[in-house]
Amino acid sequence: MEADRPVPFEVCPIVEKAFGLMGKKWTGLIVHVLASGERRFSELLEAVPRISSRILSQRLAELEAGGVLARAVFPETPVRVMYSLTEKGRALIPIVRGLADWAHRWGGVESGGVESG
Amino acid sequence: MEADRPVPFEVCPIVEKAFGLMGKKWTGLIVHVLASGERRFSELLEAVPRISSRILSQRLAELEAGGVLARAVFPETPVRVMYSLTEKGRALIPIVRGLADWAHRWGGVESGGVESG
Repeated sequence: MEADRPVPFEVCPIVEKAFGLMGKKWTGLIVHVLASGERRFSELLEAVPRISSRILSQRLAELEAGGVLARAVFPETPVRVMYSLTEKGRALIPIVRGLADWAHRWGGVESGGVESG
Repeated sequence: MEADRPVPFEVCPIVEKAFGLMGKKWTGLIVHVLASGERRFSELLEAVPRISSRILSQRLAELEAGGVLARAVFPETPVRVMYSLTEKGRALIPIVRGLADWAHRWGGVESGGVESG
């Protein structure tokens, strides 16, 4: 018996789901961009580096299903579709800002690669 | 010309890298578990729901390369390997706690699925 072993850690299912949504490639960056205000699809596509149109659509649908963003359709010509954070989504702003601040404070993430020279 | 359009949003490359590391499946949960103290590989495997041994190894290597965690090998029989957050990794604790608190505050993430009834 090892009396000094830490107790097993249980991840709560609600927490697991939230990390599952936010821990998908690009999701955090999409929220980070929307934190600056509502955007069109084309603006998001331009702002999020290297995301494809297909994956952006998929992530936006996941975030909408998760209650994080709202999609508003304006019947203009051409139709204008705007994406914005809901109240629940805006509650994520301090978290994504925290990660951005962390990145700057800690000098970025080492690539783990070897510099050629 | 639309004078009221928001200015284009540029994602800083340092921020992009940090979201790239943390926005991978399981990474946030691994940091969340390590926030409670150092852990063995087997403990992490048990604590992080549904992660495979292969993916856990990969994520731990990425987090080590990113300076987020440290791996300590104790020459016992059997050899004991412990994973713990570095100072840089501990700076992520408020962020992962923030996401866990958000999940509880906002009642989790809707699955987007339809309840059968």
